[in-house]
Amino acid sequence: MSTYEDRLAALREQLKSDRLDGFVVPICDEHMSEYVGEYAQRLGWLTGFGGSAGTAVVMGEEAAIFTDGRYTIQVREQVSAKHWQYVGVPETSIADWLAEHAASGGRIGYDPWVHTKGWAEAAGKALAEKGAELVAVDRNPVDAVWAEQPAPSDAKMIALEDQYSGQSSAQKRAAVADWLTQHNLDAAVISALDSVAWTFNIRGEDVSHTPVALSFAMLGADGTADLYVELEKVDDAVRQHLGNAVRVHPRSAFAPALGDMKGKRIAVDPDRAVAAIFDRLAAGGAQIVPLRDPTILPKAQKNPVEQAGQRAAQKRDGAALSRFLHWLEGEAPKGALTELSAAAKLRDFRVATGKLKDLSFDTISGAGPNGAICHYKVDETTNRRIDPGSVYLVDSGGQYLDGTTDVTRTVWVGPGEPSAEMKDRFTRVLKGHIALALATFPEGTRGAQLDTLARMHLWAAGVDYAHGTGHGVGSFLAVHEGPQRIGKFAGGQAGTDEPLLPGMFLSNEPGYYKTGEYGIRIENLVLVEEREITGAEGRYFGFETLTFAPIDRTLVDTAIMTRDELRWWDDYHAKVLEVVGPQLEGDAKAWLEAACAGLG
Amino acid sequence: MSTYEDRLAALREQLKSDRLDGFVVPICDEHMSEYVGEYAQRLGWLTGFGGSAGTAVVMGEEAAIFTDGRYTIQVREQVSAKHWQYVGVPETSIADWLAEHAASGGRIGYDPWVHTKGWAEAAGKALAEKGAELVAVDRNPVDAVWAEQPAPSDAKMIALEDQYSGQSSAQKRAAVADWLTQHNLDAAVISALDSVAWTFNIRGEDVSHTPVALSFAMLGADGTADLYVELEKVDDAVRQHLGNAVRVHPRSAFAPALGDMKGKRIAVDPDRAVAAIFDRLAAGGAQIVPLRDPTILPKAQKNPVEQAGQRAAQKRDGAALSRFLHWLEGEAPKGALTELSAAAKLRDFRVATGKLKDLSFDTISGAGPNGAICHYKVDETTNRRIDPGSVYLVDSGGQYLDGTTDVTRTVWVGPGEPSAEMKDRFTRVLKGHIALALATFPEGTRGAQLDTLARMHLWAAGVDYAHGTGHGVGSFLAVHEGPQRIGKFAGGQAGTDEPLLPGMFLSNEPGYYKTGEYGIRIENLVLVEEREITGAEGRYFGFETLTFAPIDRTLVDTAIMTRDELRWWDDYHAKVLEVVGPQLEGDAKAWLEAACAGLG
Repeated sequence: MSTYEDRLAALREQLKSDRLDGFVVPICDEHMSEYVGEYAQRLGWLTGFGGSAGTAVVMGEEAAIFTDGRYTIQVREQVSAKHWQYVGVPETSIADWLAEHAASGGRIGYDPWVHTKGWAEAAGKALAEKGAELVAVDRNPVDAVWAEQPAPSDAKMIALEDQYSGQSSAQKRAAVADWLTQHNLDAAVISALDSVAWTFNIRGEDVSHTPVALSFAMLGADGTADLYVELEKVDDAVRQHLGNAVRVHPRSAFAPALGDMKGKRIAVDPDRAVAAIFDRLAAGGAQIVPLRDPTILPKAQKNPVEQAGQRAAQKRDGAALSRFLHWLEGEAPKGALTELSAAAKLRDFRVATGKLKDLSFDTISGAGPNGAICHYKVDETTNRRIDPGSVYLVDSGGQYLDGTTDVTRTVWVGPGEPSAEMKDRFTRVLKGHIALALATFPEGTRGAQLDTLARMHLWAAGVDYAHGTGHGVGSFLAVHEGPQRIGKFAGGQAGTDEPLLPGMFLSNEPGYYKTGEYGIRIENLVLVEEREITGAEGRYFGFETLTFAPIDRTLVDTAIMTRDELRWWDDYHAKVLEVVGPQLEGDAKAWLEAACAGLG
Repeated sequence: MSTYEDRLAALREQLKSDRLDGFVVPICDEHMSEYVGEYAQRLGWLTGFGGSAGTAVVMGEEAAIFTDGRYTIQVREQVSAKHWQYVGVPETSIADWLAEHAASGGRIGYDPWVHTKGWAEAAGKALAEKGAELVAVDRNPVDAVWAEQPAPSDAKMIALEDQYSGQSSAQKRAAVADWLTQHNLDAAVISALDSVAWTFNIRGEDVSHTPVALSFAMLGADGTADLYVELEKVDDAVRQHLGNAVRVHPRSAFAPALGDMKGKRIAVDPDRAVAAIFDRLAAGGAQIVPLRDPTILPKAQKNPVEQAGQRAAQKRDGAALSRFLHWLEGEAPKGALTELSAAAKLRDFRVATGKLKDLSFDTISGAGPNGAICHYKVDETTNRRIDPGSVYLVDSGGQYLDGTTDVTRTVWVGPGEPSAEMKDRFTRVLKGHIALALATFPEGTRGAQLDTLARMHLWAAGVDYAHGTGHGVGSFLAVHEGPQRIGKFAGGQAGTDEPLLPGMFLSNEPGYYKTGEYGIRIENLVLVEEREITGAEGRYFGFETLTFAPIDRTLVDTAIMTRDELRWWDDYHAKVLEVVGPQLEGDAKAWLEAACAGLG
């Protein structure tokens, strides 16, 4: 294994031979994925940084790593100060830093397959003002020096049956074809991996925790399609599932195909397609029409079959989580559990359902102060004992053929009692969770308009949480799925201005984090549903809660809850008992019955 | 008096002699005022339209009037269909309509003193695509044919003493000078009338209900200023108040002065300065820096003297309104009152304070179904009897030297009882009003983030209101003052993304309107104040309610109120009694005591 120092030196040599004065290394793949495969973890390989967001810039003498506020401490622990400057974004933009540090006449390289067109234009403009140039490379120089770079995954694809998808690929493509015709377009480029998977009702194993296959697609106005994917992933069953209207090509044929669209009007999503796609289409003479990926909304608005699948997955997942919570209540006070062992046990309960395909993300298992780190990821070096007399937070989920789950519970680990402050904060988080769960809102309402409902009781105590309140969730797809989001207006996250529509799945997850002491989060998934209200003027929507597992009553201060909130608690736990109860037996069932008794 | 047909014909003749193929007539003045003087009511003169927002376009053969949804009915009643087409905005933009209806080579005129630069650029671009041209006129052709056009008001200005303003004009100009120096600017154009009034601590009587004088100003980086105003408005006292550092020029000298700024860096507010100001500065060789008027934030954040003044004005105004409500409760059930007579009586009570300078806007006096028209303005033709056994809404306010008030009360007029639906809706409006009044929120929170608090209880019943929840209010200035606003995210009104800051005044005015039956609104003014919370993490703000007058308990359904809401009601009415009670005697005082008794 080479050292990080060796790797940086090797990259600098490569830049010299490529006649570049610098190079930009983001964490990104050709699909703008949130989680990228090992082969695309260039930043981690080069610097040792283990966070999920960051960018490096390597120049002849200088090298800088750009991270946001979440990773201020982590980057200093993992990346050597001897070779790297630490730069905070968004305080300093990469474009501004480049413009300040590049020499006039300098050539700064970037790989157009891992940046948006918008980024390349902004950075190019900033450099041009300095007399320097942003240069698209043909081959990523990191790949040239990364001897042990893993190959992209060669896992097989599978077909997702209509009993899970609820709509055939042909029907989905026909709807896109109608949309293309309406917009007088010839085709749409689909490059987001979950959009490709949804369109063709296929799934893969190429990305950790997200069941997608590395692929691109071009959907035509006649309902046919071109799918670009490594051919060895496509077995006969998948080929038959895809049918004659889908032409399957090697993944490597995608880039050349973009150059062969002369005169065609092609829809491309500027937020989801990388710069290279725009460049290749333009070079080939295609007419690019920047429009949102037409599968985004139909994917987000789950059909009745997907909704039923989600309910079945939640019922199963809720029983696994309830078994874990029962087990935890018995074992944790003995003082022998750790974050890792607890997460492993929770995984075991999910595996025991016999239906688990994968976790939907790395379990966040946070004991005491580790629970206060919002993006905590436990590993051997951070692993902490779950102390008796402490707060423990566990955020986890499963991937099942019928649905993707995501749930957070925060529990008091006995013996002893939680402090008055812990109960106050937990109850305020709960009150926010309930306010959102009970919200009714008119058609056209955005997530930004509901966010405050989840925060208002914390605000009343002078505290808040520094993350969004709810993200979209896929159907046996990405656990973070757009376009909708519940979050602060102007909070910097995309999607809070997206109108909520019936059929959308969202998380409801307010929290509170006391640095160095404990973290609290209560998360259920919800479904946007139409509400029939007598005398209503217009369409009104509300949420159906989908997740079923008891919330820890030890941490509740009923004195600050209203009658409506207590009624919600009782109704919710009655439903938990109804859904999960029949799946448990013996001690676990008795425990669940006690955990679900009324508070009101 | 000429007919509207004559006027349209005369304008067309004038356009011919001006070699124009069309002309655009908005409701606007040289200061982008919300309310414009009689002299600038060109649209009303030309068409008969009496609404507050609209635009006409007159072409050789065609003529169109553009109004928004509020005026769909009114424009058809007031403007002749024989000569005018009705066009709805924003469904059809004026620029698009112009581009569609103008002939290639056509010359469409506009008066750059009554449009923004942004509007002129967009309309010019749309016309250019059609081969037509947008032409700035030197003299407004409407003025050329409007024989009886009133002269701009010649009312005198007055100086506002420091006991009301709390800060001298020299101090305010020094702060602007610091800002100019920081931005490396030579001067700022101030063209909004209330900004000029605030900067110089002067007030006028040139605009109905808003105590401002028609004027422009140029503030320099050295703290001196040029004030452009009709010289006869400035008496010796005002001249002395302005001091030597303020050079007073005739209003007509402003336009030439703009042409005399060669090489200077001048801040101009694109939202508040008309196109002509940009054009003149550019023509003279000035360097225009588009920045928000630097007086906007200091004007919005009221100082302690202005806050104390507002409290004094509210105390006085609350007593006048309480006297009115007592009188109304006795008289209205007899069936002899009308909207006009009630509004006149309310005015009398305010005049009787001996301090009223003006109403702060035309009183909205809405009986029964007229209360459901949000922008209702009573006149002789719409005047309606206040029926016994009905709901009556009155929205009114006063201008006093120490403050501007704005308050809405909705009352049940006996005999009999309001319906269950009326009580339900009123109580939901009240619950929203209380939720906003009780809100605590972190620094950086925008009005859009609080808006839902005022609507959520109405939404739960499937209803809403089609207006904003809160606007800023001036200090003996405009009753609608920016930049802050509480309203729906993406609701189309400016200011909902403005962070709320301590010292800002806002209205809190949710409502409900049942077309053809009744309207409900409960409005108090509030002050954004810093909140001291034990254990708070960061700065938190809340609202102090400033308005004191009883809310009608007859319309309340306490069964759907929480303990906290009942406590707010009781606390608020205890305060009303404390503030207003000592100013009343006899029957009125006894009535107030009963009206302020606890509900809890």
